[in-house]
Amino acid sequence: MKCDKCGGKAVFHMRHHKLALCQADYLAWLPQQVERAIEKYKMFSHQDRLLVAVSGGKDSLSLWDILHKLGYAVDGLYISLGIDGGVNYSAESRRLSEQFAGSRGLHLHVVDVAAEYGAGIPQIAERAQRGRGKACSVCGLAKRHIMNRVARQGGYQVLATGHNLDDEAAVLFGNTLTWAGSYLLRQGPVLEARDEGLVRKVKPLCRIYEREMAAYAWLGGIEYIYDECPFAVGATSLYYKDLLNQLESERPGAKLNFYLSFLRAKAAGLFSPDADPDRPLLHTCPACGQPTTAPGECTFCRMTSKLQPGET
Amino acid sequence: MKCDKCGGKAVFHMRHHKLALCQADYLAWLPQQVERAIEKYKMFSHQDRLLVAVSGGKDSLSLWDILHKLGYAVDGLYISLGIDGGVNYSAESRRLSEQFAGSRGLHLHVVDVAAEYGAGIPQIAERAQRGRGKACSVCGLAKRHIMNRVARQGGYQVLATGHNLDDEAAVLFGNTLTWAGSYLLRQGPVLEARDEGLVRKVKPLCRIYEREMAAYAWLGGIEYIYDECPFAVGATSLYYKDLLNQLESERPGAKLNFYLSFLRAKAAGLFSPDADPDRPLLHTCPACGQPTTAPGECTFCRMTSKLQPGET
Repeated sequence: MKCDKCGGKAVFHMRHHKLALCQADYLAWLPQQVERAIEKYKMFSHQDRLLVAVSGGKDSLSLWDILHKLGYAVDGLYISLGIDGGVNYSAESRRLSEQFAGSRGLHLHVVDVAAEYGAGIPQIAERAQRGRGKACSVCGLAKRHIMNRVARQGGYQVLATGHNLDDEAAVLFGNTLTWAGSYLLRQGPVLEARDEGLVRKVKPLCRIYEREMAAYAWLGGIEYIYDECPFAVGATSLYYKDLLNQLESERPGAKLNFYLSFLRAKAAGLFSPDADPDRPLLHTCPACGQPTTAPGECTFCRMTSKLQPGET
Repeated sequence: MKCDKCGGKAVFHMRHHKLALCQADYLAWLPQQVERAIEKYKMFSHQDRLLVAVSGGKDSLSLWDILHKLGYAVDGLYISLGIDGGVNYSAESRRLSEQFAGSRGLHLHVVDVAAEYGAGIPQIAERAQRGRGKACSVCGLAKRHIMNRVARQGGYQVLATGHNLDDEAAVLFGNTLTWAGSYLLRQGPVLEARDEGLVRKVKPLCRIYEREMAAYAWLGGIEYIYDECPFAVGATSLYYKDLLNQLESERPGAKLNFYLSFLRAKAAGLFSPDADPDRPLLHTCPACGQPTTAPGECTFCRMTSKLQPGET
């Protein structure tokens, strides 16, 4: 198969775009697609200081790579969650994130949850939930808290995450199966900043398929952690991804169309603005100063307040 | 397994309802479920005269059976589409519909498309689409036209169809994959009457799984046509049903929840009323007197106007 740009040997074929590209053209093409999404959804400009949350995985490291190549001022944030899972997950992902930053001379913030708050995510989850161990929800909460804190303290205007199309489509699929109104209303490539101290959040990869991101990292020589987080095994989102992959293999482009037609329908006013009566009033946590939905200490502070840094 | 009502031998188990029933209790239970849907969605009352569209299949014949047992005044309408497909589809489904009505002393209207309009659906589709043969869309159009005509002429207040939960969920799934706003806004168990001559349409089986309907017909001794319409092979709706069945087998109740949470979200105002700017103004077809979305002859009359009854 030939490259549709230069006629050389194609190494990657995208059925939904009816496009095959060689290595060099693919590595040039993907950042252009990301740039188009950044512009279309008015995510940020070259005047903004960006913070990208990196996990050591293909999506977030590639996003950092792309934003840097596109000339944005972008630092990284790695949050060490204290997850081992038999594959040395956190240590290895940290090593890869630091290696990525070091090789490009980029600045990486590192927050070590256990060192800073007294316990890693698995332990916090175990205590907070009295052993029920809903690690994923605790992890999500902790990451949102820490990302927002570091972004505010560092004076970043925008926080970028590496969610790709497959991630976004799976979330949308889950929210649609239960017609979760307020989630449907809030899902999108941009979550606006709020005066109470929430930094603007953006997802520049929201239109890029997971396999396109994997190809970018691979062809671009970005070393990343292959393992999924050990806690993700059996996650509902992975099940939805499987179903959507079936649909995609039968009808190339179905996943992209599902997500984009949702954004278009929303922009065209499909949903009633009154359908989100729960848009939370934000309060300020007296302990950490971050915004929180209920008066008093925020959930993250409550979860970690009885821990002593260095305890475990 | 024991019947949860009487302790006798259960013959049917519904995982999503956590309910197992014997033959007699199942045959009593299902009509109660249908009655509850009729009341919940305010479909019709015992004062209304109903017309149920029957195809000879399990859903529509069972619906007729149930409505009759529940004491509603309900006649049937069978539309002979002129489809053979090697399985004598139309002849056999007509025979079964007439046998059903005859055995219960119920009145069945029969419209033979070929005799009345000059050609069966496959021929009309072939001519109208110049051989592209979009038989299913032509068939749907013809059935809607004829059902509404017979209901109006017969003075029926309500037209009932045998769409079950699997049908409705598959349509909803398709409309959701493309976020087809106007379809989402209009889908529901009731399509209100319109003064321009559209009869109220209802779907009393919308909350009943397909396999529950099959069990009802089987246990109730209703003889029905097993074959799908030969034109339905490979239909997108069947593909969506497969996907939803996978989801259901993994998470019993997911299909019902998908559909019901949609109805609840809609009733709670999720969608903006302005999202359906296309709600059509209806005109009257000068040829047949039925409502149509564009001025001039309706599509059905245009499709059939050059045919001579008895031509094929």
